[in-house]
Amino acid sequence: MFKKYWIFVAIVVSVSGAAAQNTQSDILKPSAAQLAWQKAEIGVLISYDLPVFQGTPYNQAQNRITPFTNANIFNPTKLNTDQWIQAAKAGGAKFAVLTVTHETGFALYQSDVNPYCMKALTFQNGKGDIVRDFVNSCRKYGIEPGIYVGIRWNSYLGIHDFKVEGTSEFAKRRQAAYKNMCEGMVTELCTRYGNLFMIWFDGGADDPSKNGPNILPIVTKYQPNCLFYHNAQKADFRWGGSESGTVPYPSWSTFPFVFSHAARQDTIFANNFALLKTGSPTGKYWMPAMSDAPLRGHKGGHDWFWNPNEDHHVNPLDKMMSMYYGSVGHNSTLILGITPDNRGLIPNVDVQRLTEWGDSVKKVFKTPIANWSTKNKDYTINIPSQKVFSKIVLQENIQEGERVRSFVVEANINGEWKIIKEGSCIGHKYIGLLEKPITASSVRLKILTSTANPMMQNFAVY
Amino acid sequence: MFKKYWIFVAIVVSVSGAAAQNTQSDILKPSAAQLAWQKAEIGVLISYDLPVFQGTPYNQAQNRITPFTNANIFNPTKLNTDQWIQAAKAGGAKFAVLTVTHETGFALYQSDVNPYCMKALTFQNGKGDIVRDFVNSCRKYGIEPGIYVGIRWNSYLGIHDFKVEGTSEFAKRRQAAYKNMCEGMVTELCTRYGNLFMIWFDGGADDPSKNGPNILPIVTKYQPNCLFYHNAQKADFRWGGSESGTVPYPSWSTFPFVFSHAARQDTIFANNFALLKTGSPTGKYWMPAMSDAPLRGHKGGHDWFWNPNEDHHVNPLDKMMSMYYGSVGHNSTLILGITPDNRGLIPNVDVQRLTEWGDSVKKVFKTPIANWSTKNKDYTINIPSQKVFSKIVLQENIQEGERVRSFVVEANINGEWKIIKEGSCIGHKYIGLLEKPITASSVRLKILTSTANPMMQNFAVY
Repeated sequence: MFKKYWIFVAIVVSVSGAAAQNTQSDILKPSAAQLAWQKAEIGVLISYDLPVFQGTPYNQAQNRITPFTNANIFNPTKLNTDQWIQAAKAGGAKFAVLTVTHETGFALYQSDVNPYCMKALTFQNGKGDIVRDFVNSCRKYGIEPGIYVGIRWNSYLGIHDFKVEGTSEFAKRRQAAYKNMCEGMVTELCTRYGNLFMIWFDGGADDPSKNGPNILPIVTKYQPNCLFYHNAQKADFRWGGSESGTVPYPSWSTFPFVFSHAARQDTIFANNFALLKTGSPTGKYWMPAMSDAPLRGHKGGHDWFWNPNEDHHVNPLDKMMSMYYGSVGHNSTLILGITPDNRGLIPNVDVQRLTEWGDSVKKVFKTPIANWSTKNKDYTINIPSQKVFSKIVLQENIQEGERVRSFVVEANINGEWKIIKEGSCIGHKYIGLLEKPITASSVRLKILTSTANPMMQNFAVY
Repeated sequence: MFKKYWIFVAIVVSVSGAAAQNTQSDILKPSAAQLAWQKAEIGVLISYDLPVFQGTPYNQAQNRITPFTNANIFNPTKLNTDQWIQAAKAGGAKFAVLTVTHETGFALYQSDVNPYCMKALTFQNGKGDIVRDFVNSCRKYGIEPGIYVGIRWNSYLGIHDFKVEGTSEFAKRRQAAYKNMCEGMVTELCTRYGNLFMIWFDGGADDPSKNGPNILPIVTKYQPNCLFYHNAQKADFRWGGSESGTVPYPSWSTFPFVFSHAARQDTIFANNFALLKTGSPTGKYWMPAMSDAPLRGHKGGHDWFWNPNEDHHVNPLDKMMSMYYGSVGHNSTLILGITPDNRGLIPNVDVQRLTEWGDSVKKVFKTPIANWSTKNKDYTINIPSQKVFSKIVLQENIQEGERVRSFVVEANINGEWKIIKEGSCIGHKYIGLLEKPITASSVRLKILTSTANPMMQNFAVY
């Protein structure tokens, strides 16, 4: 059987047109940081900013053009970042990302270059540093800390889509000063809090030759192992093209060009972000898809920030499970938005749902019905009799690249091999959901095409 | 003799066209705050802002359009506001005004509404409050404290001549937020530091119905006895039309309309600010002229802010004396700009000049050669024999208004009355300098015209 699969492999012709099979050195592979990010599978984005304290629902369009005249509304009386991270961990997150600045421009730390920060507050006598609290809590609970820096919008300083309004010399100098300030913040954030798992410039940090600050050299210098997302020069992963918390199938980890929200909009906006969703198996950049969505996405909700009286927006468990299958199960890392409230705590209902969800994922995938061992010479699994299964999990060893291009999974049912799943991309993880549980004596994977020797790491049924 | 003057008075016809002599109630009079301001005669403006620390000379045009990207250059290692106020007092100042904000937008205190303030500094661990230090020093040395709030320009927030650049909805909201912030700062400044002698909005605070914040009600509410300078609604005094530290003669305390730099520019800009310089004896508003100039105004200098290596700009003593005569001696209050350096001290050479100047003024006017007493029924002074004099000082009791419209001073020299000075305005103080010292047996003042009974308070020769 094993040899049979190798026949398929041998006839692969690279879609890029290369006549021969790729050599090892041709194969795109993730960086160590990208690999860790994909293996993490789930992270949380914790959004916290002045609007949480405004007493009315967050409205992004308004928020972007309405400066907060009183930053001192920021006063979380029960602030507890341990509780945030415990909630994230209960949901299965392996990393957490905090909005150090979002679109108001207010910064959740002691910046020496951005006065519109916690220094400006009466809260904690102007000495608060939620970034430090957050990082400390992450380390305490074994969660990797990441930071989100919003520089595309800054309602306080009058920045709209990276730009200062106007064409005067004054506007030009304010633009230069803003770039300078952003570089200063990135330097502070990259040097004060130890190793960061990732840094996220929402909407990208634009092109440093245009309105973007020159932040890549700063991150590279001080945080060489940090995931960088993203500017016109570099993106260690890509947005998955929706805020549904899922990507369609297939979603390849490779992409044709360096992705930035702020660049090549014609291409990436086409067909409702189709290219972001699918990636491209012939892409020249390793740039896997992030699936992102807020936990509060139900009953009309889509809340990256906490709003008063909207506990009913918390997704039900089945929706969370679907999100898991449609992201992690589609070779994409899921980043779930969670929302500390105006007390400074993740609300109870959210904590409860995260816990249920984390428990549920763990329970479903606790013990496979059967699984293949890398020691096996072929991709066949014998199923214990009387066991039913409804999920197939496939994983490539993506440290060696994403090699599989097409596959089928067949089940031996009453002595007859039947295809129960057909697919293309496997990548870090493919979870195939069957329409209904089945019984079979054995299951086998056929890799039909691949760019080089497939390097499978896992094949199991649940 | 006395009756003779009354003949002149009796034939006065008000220039405004009123047929009869003004009644007491018709006569414009200063408020208590204005009276105190005119009686003070000399104040200082202490300018202190980020440019002091930039290492290069202050350039106002550049400063207005170039945000400071690093406020932490502000780090005066020997800051001593006592020393500032002692220097001001040595120069004869009775009040001192501090630039709480100038054109960078940086605020020298712990603002809760303007994050670009001392909270943003590492200096004094972000807890510094130079406004408080300054006010405390003023009170310690018996100097009246005033504050200067620059809101017309704010390079940090992108405010140019009161305005946010652009026409977008965002720009409109930023404009509204800026007005709101300015009102917040004025509220803070009017409520935190006890009674203020004056509040100075440089370039005016514009019209609240346009781009100006609505600050008059705030000042009126919290500082009802504070001199207000100025917006489109109110000005308790006026700029004297130059930064020479002098006004021409005559300079009346009354003015035809509420003065604002930002309003009625056609009228006030005409003839090199002629109307600001002279005022108008028929003006409907009591609004005496301020003469302002920096102490460092020599050899090409005109330095409201300290610059490195420019000690030679400090005015020589004779220029300071001329300034005194051309301001205080012309019925105008002199505000002298003094400049703490990057250590936080008024430089030694400035302190020395202020001391020399203060001593010199005191010495010149310590003891009159002769002076009239209000108990005298006419305005004649007998001069002790062999005494020479070169200066004539006249003062009206301006609490009762500025009544004199024309006068002559005559000296009896060898039995013959000769006119030695002719003038129009007296107001708070007129100092007439004779071309050379003279001897005379007596000197008399003839008030030729006035709007009502003259109310002289002082007539002396030195």
